[in-house]
This record gives sequence, C-alpha cells and structure tokens, in this order.
Amino acid sequence: MASHSAKKRKSRPAKKATSAGGAGSPGWASPAAQVLRVPDGFDVASFDRRSTPGFTGDKSSGRAAVAAHGAELSELQERLFAEGRCGGSRSVLLVLQGMDTAGKGGIVRHVVGLVDPQGVAHRSFAAPTAEERRHHFLWRVRRSLPRPGYIGVFDRSHYEDVLVARVENLVPPETWEKRYDEINRFEEKIVASGTPIVKVALMVSYEEQRERLAERLDRPDKFWKYDPNDVDARSLWPHYQDAYQAMLDRTNTEVAPWHVVPADRKWFARLAVSELLLDALRRLDLGWPPATFDVEVEKRRLAAT
Amino acid sequence: MASHSAKKRKSRPAKKATSAGGAGSPGWASPAAQVLRVPDGFDVASFDRRSTPGFTGDKSSGRAAVAAHGAELSELQERLFAEGRCGGSRSVLLVLQGMDTAGKGGIVRHVVGLVDPQGVAHRSFAAPTAEERRHHFLWRVRRSLPRPGYIGVFDRSHYEDVLVARVENLVPPETWEKRYDEINRFEEKIVASGTPIVKVALMVSYEEQRERLAERLDRPDKFWKYDPNDVDARSLWPHYQDAYQAMLDRTNTEVAPWHVVPADRKWFARLAVSELLLDALRRLDLGWPPATFDVEVEKRRLAAT
Repeated sequence: MASHSAKKRKSRPAKKATSAGGAGSPGWASPAAQVLRVPDGFDVASFDRRSTPGFTGDKSSGRAAVAAHGAELSELQERLFAEGRCGGSRSVLLVLQGMDTAGKGGIVRHVVGLVDPQGVAHRSFAAPTAEERRHHFLWRVRRSLPRPGYIGVFDRSHYEDVLVARVENLVPPETWEKRYDEINRFEEKIVASGTPIVKVALMVSYEEQRERLAERLDRPDKFWKYDPNDVDARSLWPHYQDAYQAMLDRTNTEVAPWHVVPADRKWFARLAVSELLLDALRRLDLGWPPATFDVEVEKRRLAAT
Repeated sequence: MASHSAKKRKSRPAKKATSAGGAGSPGWASPAAQVLRVPDGFDVASFDRRSTPGFTGDKSSGRAAVAAHGAELSELQERLFAEGRCGGSRSVLLVLQGMDTAGKGGIVRHVVGLVDPQGVAHRSFAAPTAEERRHHFLWRVRRSLPRPGYIGVFDRSHYEDVLVARVENLVPPETWEKRYDEINRFEEKIVASGTPIVKVALMVSYEEQRERLAERLDRPDKFWKYDPNDVDARSLWPHYQDAYQAMLDRTNTEVAPWHVVPADRKWFARLAVSELLLDALRRLDLGWPPATFDVEVEKRRLAAT
C-alpha cells in the first residue's frame, strides 16, 4: 500500500515554560500577569479603564498578538487535555467578572475560541434558578468546576454573590459579609487540588458602558443583548464599584489573586486575558503523557493487521 | 464626551436561507446534504473512503472553503443562540459516528471550532459509567441533548449502543435488536421538538486506520491517543462494518437521515461536515429576535444616565 501519510508532522517539540518573572510576550514591558495583578491598596475609582498597562503596542499589534497566541494556547490546552485523559487531575479555571458590556462574551469568543472546543467547559452564571436558591451559594459553582484536563470558563461566577447580591440586597448583609471568607476557603481548596484559578475583573467605564448599550439599541442584531434593567442598574453604578472594591480587597489571595483588566478597549482586554491564560497554562509545565504500553510491541502488532 | 465608537458596524444584513434544492456552495456540483445523504440500498462495503463525492475542488480549495464558512456559521450560531435566549426552543444536534481515527476530534476542532464556544455543548460518549449502566441506554443521551439555542455535538452517541454493544456482545441480541426502533422513536421526538439532527457517519478505510494508528505510535505527542485495544478491535473490523450497515439500513429515517462521509481525506471530511452543519442552520431560517421593549424610549432613558 502506498503510504499517503508521507506528510506526517514531526512530533512537536515541547515549549519550555517561561519562569514567573521571565521576559513577557513581545510588546509587553513586563509580563501581563505581573502588571495586571491587583496590588495592595488598589483603588477601583481611580483605575483608568482606557489604559493598556504594560503593553507598548497599538491595537493592530495587540490583535496580532492574540492571534499569534493561538498555536501555543492550543497546544498547551491539548497537553492539559491529554494529561486529564491519562489520569491527571489538573485543570484551569478562568473566572471572568465584569459589569454588563464589559466584554466577557467577546473574550470567550475571541480568546477561548482559539482552542479546541472539546477541551473547554464554559458556564454562564445567570440569576440562580429556584433549585439553585435552595442550596448554598457555592453549590452550583462546585458542580460547574472543570473536570481534569479541561479549561473551565466562568462567565460571571460565585462573585455575583458578593456583587449583585450585595448591591441589590438580595440577601442580608450578614450573609454576604460571610461570603468573602467562604470564597477564599473554597478557592484555596480548588487550587490545592490542582486547578489554578485565573481571576479577571474586566473594568469598563461608565461612559463606555453607555456607548455599548447604545449600540445594542442601534443595531437590530443586538436587541437580544439589551435588557431595560441594564439602564436601571446604571443608577447603582457607584454601589457596584464599591462592591468591586470590597471584592478585590477581600478575595485577592496569594493562591488565587485577582487581575484587573481595563476593558474600554476590547482589543486590549482580549490580549490581556490571552496573556493571563497562557501564563497559567505555561506554569503547569505540561508535557505529553508517556506511553503506558510498549511502543515497539504495538508497532509490530499493528503492522500484522 | 467624544464618541469612540464611530467605527460601529452596521447591523448585519440577514443572509437568506438557501432552499433545500438550491445551488450548493462553490466547488460543489450538488449540495453536500444531497450527495452525502445515504440512499436506499447503500452498501457500506463498496463505499470509497478516499473519494470526495460532490466536490470538484482539491485539498487547498477544500480547506479554504471550510475557513470561508466561518463567518456564516458564526452568525447563524449566534442567531440560534439569541433565539434560545429570547424564549425559542430550537437547537441543532450534530452526531459524529465513526471508527477510531475516523477524525471526529479534528472535526470538532476545525469545524465546530469556527463558532463561539459559548454556544456549543460538546459531549463525548465513552463506555458508560456504572451509573449510566443502571439506566436505559438513552438516559445519558437524553440528559446530554442541547438546550435551546445551542449547537450540541455528540462525539459518538447512542449509536454506540448498536455498534460496539452489538459487535462486542455487551448485551444480548434481543436487546440491541430493539434499539434501532427505540432510537428512531427517540430521534423523531427530538426533531419534532425543534432540534434537527445532523447524523454523520465518518467512514475511514481499514488501511487508513492502520496509518493513523501507526502515526500515534510514531509521535510521542500522540501516545495518549493510542490504546492497545484499538489493534484488537481491528480484528473485528468486518463485524463493525456489518453493524454500520445495519445502523444505516435501520435508522436512516426521513426526519433524521444519515450522511456518509468518506474520511480518508481529513480535509474532505471537515469540509463535508461544515457544509452539512451550515445547511442545517440555514434551514432554520434564523432571524434576529425582535426588541421586546420600546427602542426609542430606551434610547432616551439611556441617554439620561
């Protein structure tokens, strides 16, 4: 039989994990994971949401950089998936928090969309269902954690339970007040079990949110994304900002730190999250699972068929 | 405030659904959904698995055609998703069946990967778990059906229950014998509820499977995909082909017809499935959900914030 797989690719060489403090990607003065990490004393109110911290390039180079991450993101995702298939227990959890229009959906499409959908477990957290409300607030979150080998993506998350729940008085203060520590303990266990959590707060400005909502009202293909409640929620903007401040102050732990990403420029937010996700995957130092069989024996068995 | 959204896109014009018998995509002598549909009297044994039925182009034009489908697939997926968010009940289910190495995973990556992962519900059906075995064989399938608005993707499916279950004698003949009709009734209900099913049998040849398994043994980054049982299963090849023949004979219904896709050329199989998925989405004649609010009132409310 003539072989028609002469175009076989060589085994891909393992990319080396970059060290935590190593050189960042091209265009970054310092690694995104460092620049965007929430420092002590971080002030939500004065955070510039049109800035592009750490990145020296412009929009077109930023977009090119996201696309250029595709191959490495894909390969590392596949290694993670392979590890999960071969008995590994690790996974990665990307948590996307942000006000309406902050661009969470676009990040899922344009960044998470770079990898094999087979290896992605995406979950949106809307207002809890009747069943979910009967349980502890972390119940639905625990059930949504990625299985080994998967990249889990939370579009909103358990942080809604200290954001909207606090601002809209959905539960009494003594209830949401306890949740910060509960979340910290919960996340500590997740990380200890082998799932790093990439926590991203996408910070859009009040003005940019108005523009984006206005666009949804201008375009019939975006009506479905518009909810009149979104305008009502704008009157609570300062309260939401306070709730974000408290969230960042109280859940920015060593094992599961927050990153704040200015979100008024969609291209930058996407670039930033692609860098953060890539960084988390690189830190896992993923190899390919070794053969659990005798390769030469199997080659002979196969050839005999 | 200076508007920084002057670059706003116009509302995208609705693409017209092509009629069932209309002109196919460029490069297709007849629409893929017609050419690949299993005809009466279809013979598995004589099916040429390196052929590219209906497509007049070559590998590079085939690959380009898949990429070119990305924009339309994405838009139709988003319309479906929008409809689901706005109370619609429809979804689409893509069923991928095929022997080991037939290329199911590559189709998920390269075809399903063209759309927003947020709108995809992917499910692999491995050997049933202990819990799954305690239930009717369709129990785990029913729970995995896509919710409204989603494109569900089954990598293997309930058809394993008339394939491996039959060939490997996992259940007595009287059990698998009944399943064909059970499946037909099950699928009829799914389609009636608003979920078209795109059933694809990826047909790889015995020789090509050997090549692909050999590649997994040659490349350390593919060891994880190799299972020594795959070689044992090759000794049952004729029995599997018979089981595929019976499956196609007995579950090729009017409401949920089978398509057979020659899979020895990966590029063709990907192209074919992209055409079939696109065809299913086009037939839904998806629009954008209308506004459920007064657009002008909302514009004024928003502007006042």
